[in-house]
This record gives sequence, C-alpha cells and structure tokens, in this order.
Amino acid sequence: MSVERPPPEMSWWGWGDPDRPFSLPHSAAELLRREIGIGELRRPPVALEDVHLREPALPAGLRDKLVGAAGADSVRDDRLGRVLHAAGKGYGDLVHQRSGQCEQAPDVVVAPSSHESVRDVLEVCADAAVAVVPFGGGTSVVGGVAPMRGAFPAVISLDLHRLDALCAIDERSLIAVFEPGVRGPAAEALLARRGLTLGHFPQSFQYGSLGGFAATRSVGQASTGYGRFDELVVGLRCAAPAGDVSLAAVPASAAGPSVRELIVGSEGTLGVITQLALQVRPRPRARRYEGWMFGSFAEGAEALRSLVQRSEPPDVARLSDEVETRVSSALAGGGAKAAAGRVYLRARGYTAGCVVIVGWEGSQESVRLRHAHGARVLRRAGGLPVGRGPGVSWERSRFAAPYLRDDLLERGVMVDTLETATTWSNLLVLHRAVTDALHGALAARGTPALVMSHVSHLYPTGASLYFTFLAAQEVDQPLEQWRAAKQAASEAIVSAGGTITHHHAIGRDHVPWLAAEIGQPAVRALEAAKAALDPSGIMNPGKLLPERGDQPV
Amino acid sequence: MSVERPPPEMSWWGWGDPDRPFSLPHSAAELLRREIGIGELRRPPVALEDVHLREPALPAGLRDKLVGAAGADSVRDDRLGRVLHAAGKGYGDLVHQRSGQCEQAPDVVVAPSSHESVRDVLEVCADAAVAVVPFGGGTSVVGGVAPMRGAFPAVISLDLHRLDALCAIDERSLIAVFEPGVRGPAAEALLARRGLTLGHFPQSFQYGSLGGFAATRSVGQASTGYGRFDELVVGLRCAAPAGDVSLAAVPASAAGPSVRELIVGSEGTLGVITQLALQVRPRPRARRYEGWMFGSFAEGAEALRSLVQRSEPPDVARLSDEVETRVSSALAGGGAKAAAGRVYLRARGYTAGCVVIVGWEGSQESVRLRHAHGARVLRRAGGLPVGRGPGVSWERSRFAAPYLRDDLLERGVMVDTLETATTWSNLLVLHRAVTDALHGALAARGTPALVMSHVSHLYPTGASLYFTFLAAQEVDQPLEQWRAAKQAASEAIVSAGGTITHHHAIGRDHVPWLAAEIGQPAVRALEAAKAALDPSGIMNPGKLLPERGDQPV
Repeated sequence: MSVERPPPEMSWWGWGDPDRPFSLPHSAAELLRREIGIGELRRPPVALEDVHLREPALPAGLRDKLVGAAGADSVRDDRLGRVLHAAGKGYGDLVHQRSGQCEQAPDVVVAPSSHESVRDVLEVCADAAVAVVPFGGGTSVVGGVAPMRGAFPAVISLDLHRLDALCAIDERSLIAVFEPGVRGPAAEALLARRGLTLGHFPQSFQYGSLGGFAATRSVGQASTGYGRFDELVVGLRCAAPAGDVSLAAVPASAAGPSVRELIVGSEGTLGVITQLALQVRPRPRARRYEGWMFGSFAEGAEALRSLVQRSEPPDVARLSDEVETRVSSALAGGGAKAAAGRVYLRARGYTAGCVVIVGWEGSQESVRLRHAHGARVLRRAGGLPVGRGPGVSWERSRFAAPYLRDDLLERGVMVDTLETATTWSNLLVLHRAVTDALHGALAARGTPALVMSHVSHLYPTGASLYFTFLAAQEVDQPLEQWRAAKQAASEAIVSAGGTITHHHAIGRDHVPWLAAEIGQPAVRALEAAKAALDPSGIMNPGKLLPERGDQPV
Repeated sequence: MSVERPPPEMSWWGWGDPDRPFSLPHSAAELLRREIGIGELRRPPVALEDVHLREPALPAGLRDKLVGAAGADSVRDDRLGRVLHAAGKGYGDLVHQRSGQCEQAPDVVVAPSSHESVRDVLEVCADAAVAVVPFGGGTSVVGGVAPMRGAFPAVISLDLHRLDALCAIDERSLIAVFEPGVRGPAAEALLARRGLTLGHFPQSFQYGSLGGFAATRSVGQASTGYGRFDELVVGLRCAAPAGDVSLAAVPASAAGPSVRELIVGSEGTLGVITQLALQVRPRPRARRYEGWMFGSFAEGAEALRSLVQRSEPPDVARLSDEVETRVSSALAGGGAKAAAGRVYLRARGYTAGCVVIVGWEGSQESVRLRHAHGARVLRRAGGLPVGRGPGVSWERSRFAAPYLRDDLLERGVMVDTLETATTWSNLLVLHRAVTDALHGALAARGTPALVMSHVSHLYPTGASLYFTFLAAQEVDQPLEQWRAAKQAASEAIVSAGGTITHHHAIGRDHVPWLAAEIGQPAVRALEAAKAALDPSGIMNPGKLLPERGDQPV
C-alpha cells in the first residue's frame, strides 16, 4: 500500500489533483441513469479568473502586523490563495466553488511556521477583532474551515501547513510528537522509517492534517482496531488567545474534567492546536482482508455485534446495506468473474444480501489467531466467505470516493454523505429512519434518491452508520435541495437517538442540532469555556457554537 | 469470589464494619517495629458522644424547605448522621475523626430519592446560597466529600444512597443504566442475575458508589482489561443548579468537545450525577491469576511494557517494587511453604526481586490463548513463574488494605497512599523521584519512612504508579507531618512529569497542583464552565477548583 506518496496540490473546485482525468465508470453512469434519471449534461467548474471575490478588507495596518508576526512569505492574498481557502470539501462548498461564488473567501491567508508565530498572529487578530479560521488540510465536509465573517470586519485563514515537523519519537512509550500541519501520508512516511504507524486512514487521508484529525475527532477506516484519532492523542499544545494550554503526555489521569477532551474536538473555536503527542504502533507485519456475504443487513449487523462483543475485533469491519452492496457490485463492473460470483452466491441462497469486509493487521500470529476466531464467529452468524477479492478491491479504492464525487457533480448529480452512531439495539431503527427521511425529502422535491449506507466502526455498545445519498441535481436550487435532504436526515438522527455526528464533526452544517444532542446547559458551559480561552470570540466564528461567534465582543 | 455480599454500615472513624476485631498480624507489627520504630502504643478513636460538633447553623426556614424537597425521612441532623458525613477516608480525615474533631461536619444531611428531588434540593440551596457536598460512598481519600464551609452560611451533605435503582439493561448493547447511589457489591449482584459484570473492583469496591466512581474517574484492579470507569460511561444525566445535562447513550461522537468528559471527573463541582449508562460485559467463565518473579523493578516494568505493547494485555497486571515485594512477603507470614518458596527462588538467583501478579479473565479459550501468549512474553523478559499462590493470596486480600490502615492508625502509624501515571520511558525516573521525596521529607522530621510502590494499570504508552508510605506518627503534629510528606511527593510528581492523580481525583488535597498539570488558561476555562452550570458556586466548594468555591457569589 503506497499510502506514503505525497499527493499533488489540492484543486480549488474539487478533490485532489486538478489534472486528474474524468473517470466516472460507464457502469456507474448507466446505473445512475436508471436509478435517479440523470442525463448527458456536463457542468464543469468556472475558470479561476471568473470566480467572484470581494476586495480584501483588512483593517489599516493589519497586513503589516501579520507580516511582522509570521514573515512576509507567510502572508498571501492572491486570487488562487484566497479561493483555495474559501471553503472545505462539503457538497455545499463544492457547489459554491464550482459556480465561482467565493464572496466568503478570507481577506488574507497567513501561514505561520511555529507555535510562537501562531501566538503572535492570534494576538494581532485579537487586538484588531479580526476573525481567525484555522485551516489544516482543508478537507472538512461540514463547513469547518469556511470563513464566516458575521459582524467581523475581516477574516483570515490560518493555514498550518508549515507546522510540519515530527518533533520527537519516544519508541519505548510508543509516542510520536508532531506539529499539526503534517498530512496523513507525510506522517506515515516519517513513522515508517522507525517501523511505526498511526494506523489512521480516513477517506480524507491523502490531504487531511493531524491537527485537523484531532480538532474534529476524525475516525479512520481501521479505527475499530487502531482507535479513533481522539483516543490516540495523549498530550497536546494549543495556542488560545487567552494563553497556551499545554498538556504533557500521560497515559491517563483523574485530574478533574478532561482538558484534553475539551481541546480535542474543539474545531478551532478555542485556539489552534500547535503540537500533538500521539500514540503510535509497530507497523503490522501481516494483513488479511476478506469479504463475507450475509442474507440481510440485520443478519450482518448481528454478526458484527458478535465479533466485537465476543473478543478482540478485527481492525477493519464494514457492513454495506443491501443497496450499497448492489451499487458497489454494479460499479465494480461486469465480466465473467463477477457473473461467476453471482452464480456461486445464488446457488447458496444469497439472491440479494449484504457484503461485509473484515481486515486483520498485526503480527503473523495475531492475524492468524484473530482471523480464525473471527471467521468462526462470522460463519456461526450465517456468513458465507467470498474470498479476498472484495477486501482487496475495497482497499484499493478506499481513498477514491471524493474523486468520484467530482465526476458526479460534473454530471449534475447531487451527492453527499452523512454519518451517525448509536447502540446496537437501536441500529436498525436508526438505519431505517434516516434512509426513509432522505427518500422522503428528495421524493417530495421530485428528485427520487438513491440512498445507501454502511456500518464501519464497531464498539462493544454500538456502531457507526454512514450514509451516501444521490439524486439528480436541481439546476436552479441545488443548495435548497441539499438542505432539505440534510435537514430531514438530521432531524431523523436526532429523533431516533443517534449522535448528530460520529466523525465529521459539527462545523457549520451541524450547529442547529448540537443543542438537541447535549442540551442548552451544556451548550452554555462550552460557550463559557470558549469565552475564557477566546475572550473576543475571534476563533472560527459560526462553527460549533453559533451564539457568540456571530458577533465580535 | 463473594464480591456481592452487601457490607455492613460504615464506621464513622475508619473503614468498614466498626465491630470488626483488631487484626494487625503479628508479623506486620514486628516488621514495623524493626523498620520504622513503632512502640506498643494503642490510640483508639474517641467515643461518639465525645466528638466535637458545632450547632447546626441552617438559615431560617431552610430545613422545612429541604423536607419539602426531599421528604421528612430524608433529612437528618442527628449526631451520628452528621459525623458520618463529616469526612471521607483519607489519612487526614481519619486523624480528625478519630480524635473527635468534627467541627467541619455538615449542618444537615439530605438523602433525596429521585432526580427530581435532587433538582429541588439544589434549587432550595441555590436560593439560600448554601453549599452542597454530594456524598456517594463517602470513600474519597483526597478530601472529595469533606464539607468546606468557606464563606457559606451553611453546608449540606447530599447523600445519594437512596438513588439505588438499576433502571434498565440493554443486553444487546451491553449497557446497564444505574442510579448513582448503587454501591459496588449491589451493582455486581444486580448484574450477576443477567450473567453480566462491570468488572470494576477498586480497593473501595465494597463501599464506593457508581456515581462516585464516575465523578472521580475511579480505576479498578482489573481496569487494564475492563477499562477505567470513565471509559465505561456511555451516557449520563446530571442535575446542575443551572439545569440538567442529559447525554443519551451513544458509543462515540464527534459532536465537539466531550461533555461526557466534562461531567465525568467533575467531582460534584458542576452538579450531581443522577443516572449513568455504563458498558457491562458477560461475566467471565474462566479466571487465571498467577505470580511471576523478576530480578528488579526495572526488569519487571520492561516485562509489563512488552505485555501491553505486543498484544491484548492481561486483565490484571501488577508489579510490586523491591520493598513492596519484601513487605508483602513478610506480611504473608512465615511457615514451611514460604521458606520453601524462598529456597526455590534463591536457587534460581532471585535473592531479592520483584513480584508480578497477572490475571486473565474471559472465556476458557480466551484465557487459555492469552495466558499462553502472556507467559511467553514474561518468560522472554526474564520472569520466573511462581505459581498461582501469590495470585490467589493477592485476590483474597485485595479489599483488606483499608482495614489494615485502621489498625495501623491505632498503633500510632502514619500510613497513606498516593498515585500517579507517566509514560513508560519516564516510569523509573518518576518512581525514584517520589520514593526519594517521601524518604527525604520524613527523615527530615526524624520519622524515617517505609516507602513501597507498585505498577497496577497498563496502557500502551505508560503505566500508573501507586505508593504506600508509613512512618511512626508524630504525636503532637500528625497532620503537619503528613502534609510535609504529601507536599514533597506531589512536588516530585509534578517536577518529574507525572499526573498529580491517576485515579484518586483532585478533591481538596490535590487542588494546589492542578494548575501545574493543566495550566492557568485551562483552569480558567473549567472555572467558566462551572460558573455556567453552577452560577452561585454552591456545588462542592473548595474542591477541584479553589478560586471560586471558597466564596459564595
């Protein structure tokens, strides 16, 4: 797996390399034509020179002060720089960017290269009451890096890519100390030299930064085994306008409420994470990924529940529902092998069914033992092994979905994902509620949806659910259409007892549902903690906690 | 293991059953005479009727309002009731209680029996600006339940023992919902009927309450396997003066800073936990505990590090340093078997050495596999198996230490424990620093100390260290003597990079070191969160965060 190759510079209107050729498979286009009725339309993004930007509106003298704080080569306000920092990679962001609506772009982009320089930039901005939006990899799909000006006179994007050092490795304690701007592939390359890995592979891996992973509680595809990113953080340093929060690396503490858990997940609203002490592991010597078929989503979910409750679970475990199984199989294309596979399954009574991908990593012995145990549990739960093919093909394409999304947007398809988590006993209820809500909301607008989902992170008490929904894009009101779907799904999640987000964070898009999750008293407690660390409310306004952020104090 | 038998009512001057006979083993008395020079002195506690109490000083009409809120039979201000709630079970607490100094006793004890009734009591107290000290099992060893009047006109102890229901069990999701007043044995008895267990066995197990375990981030003797108590909390309800914080049970969430981690560990300073959704497990079918000898503490620590970093660790793992190994062996007494054991060890080159207790629990197969793997790792690390004897004897006596402490106090021995955690690479440095600090501080007072310690909780990145120190009690200044030792140890912990507490919490006694651990900006953030949830500062003043608590707003 060549996860360590540094990716090309990000496109301003989509994901990844802007020069990558259009690649929507023919089989996928066929399927979408059939299922949601898309046409032959092509809607390319506008040219960079046609993007709408407002004139930078920095208060007098501020640019010089920022140069003083971060250095001349760290301050840019050129067109491309501002457009690149105008949005993250959510559906709404991309609709705006592709159509050239970048009025919300930051007035200036500042890229300091040290903790001290970050501190100085924050001081300058606090004095001038200018909003600061921390920007790591820029991959947020919930509006986490969108500059929200509100009543602020100006907004800067604080790009952290120059804070890119591996500061220290403590091999005895399996702790690596990184700066926050290190991206996934660079972190793995730096660790690989010492035979170590973070084991954190979210779909945003190629562009996401470690600071962003921590600030948003990212979850990777192998997090069932390696742990959520928030669980990997054993120490940190955060520059807040009111002062630094420095937590030494300790494995656990009973010293009151967890300050680590206050900073982790704070999404840049309290301060800027400038250093992270992270738990690492020896790189696995052996890996085994394979596919299993189950008669239904319910059966598959029961199998995964047994797997995680009966002993050490696999490192990767992922169950697609009936629709996702069917669509993935169609996307993988036809051919003799696929046809033979269908015959094999049909002969065993699996006319429809759901695919499970399971993966074990570690020492040869650990993989062998855990695989043997896991296979026994899956077989007893009604599973049929379908070999290593599905595992290998999933692994090969596991960072590809964001690229596919660009192609779909070009073909006039609305496509977005959302995710939640709940207890095992509530999993099917929530799955049904969200699926129905998305179908209902989009059917009501005359754009029938394709809705599919998977379980991808197992816990002893429950699991995550990840939904993908597609429909023909409304030409006139693409964002209203999307908001209707998002709203319906979010209401369904909240009503059916799920969390509003399992690993995408709150950002801008989930703010309306935070109070439903934690209640007003807790919202006020978080607001108060923010006011203590960020007295003038300049940090990432409009995100996470809306009430204070919209207006400078 | 009969952990489920309900214990007798707690003594007001010591631990557990007041009628239990004095039981300091002869061998232990001998050892202490030799090592720290104690005499034949007996210092029994004063009689209850000789205890000093101040007259209850409730504001006019408050008692009636409390009766209105909680019911007449829920409000008591008799001598025994007030004395029982005058202190926890720390060394300083017991010195006060045994000598009859209970001037700090609460003015009244209120024991509501529902969430709503707790809410009503908080409202009455907030209106009257009366301090409220939540009281679960009353087992805090860091002053967590000590009524600290400060500038408040009165203080009530809010005893939660009537909130003792098992509200629900979700067997599919392995979640049990409890009220906070349920004590360890009762919780295990209620779960055992369904074949389940919490697996949480701290030394305070017999008297500690679930609410207290959560509020203080308790860690049990099998927490390496079953998880810290804070990790078991998947949902909760907390009555704060400003309103309820209710978090539905979800396995994980990315919805901002963790509110769960703000309430867990809040030690009654934000509100009263009135319900807990806890992860439970199937009761283990098999258990295997055994002892291993290592040549030194350093060698034993390396072995435990290998154990936890190379694969699934044992559920219990505990390494005694050289002094604790020697003292435990002396306490276990002589006899032919012990002598034979010493000959066996000496023949293999272990003239001194350190004992490791390891325990595996689970299915027969899991125990067999993990034991085989663990034994291989321990042998490769230089360990010598010494059979199941030490494991069985440790397990039999694992809740006995607090009783032993009462006997030691009666014999004029100062005895206390303290604990910390750090990374593996810093473990020996911290062990040496704290040991030296305790020896130094007590030698300087002319009372040479016996200092011993163990590692008892393993994490991939580090481990806990638990110290016991004993010295002949200074007759005139027992608390000054203790404070000198505690201060020296705490300074050593902070300077050497440990956390000020791994599982005893901050309480009253660790307040001076919180800022060293998290920094002033984070202290201010926690103060602000408290002010939002507890605007008049009535909740457990003087604990955790000193600045606001000492004076009512």
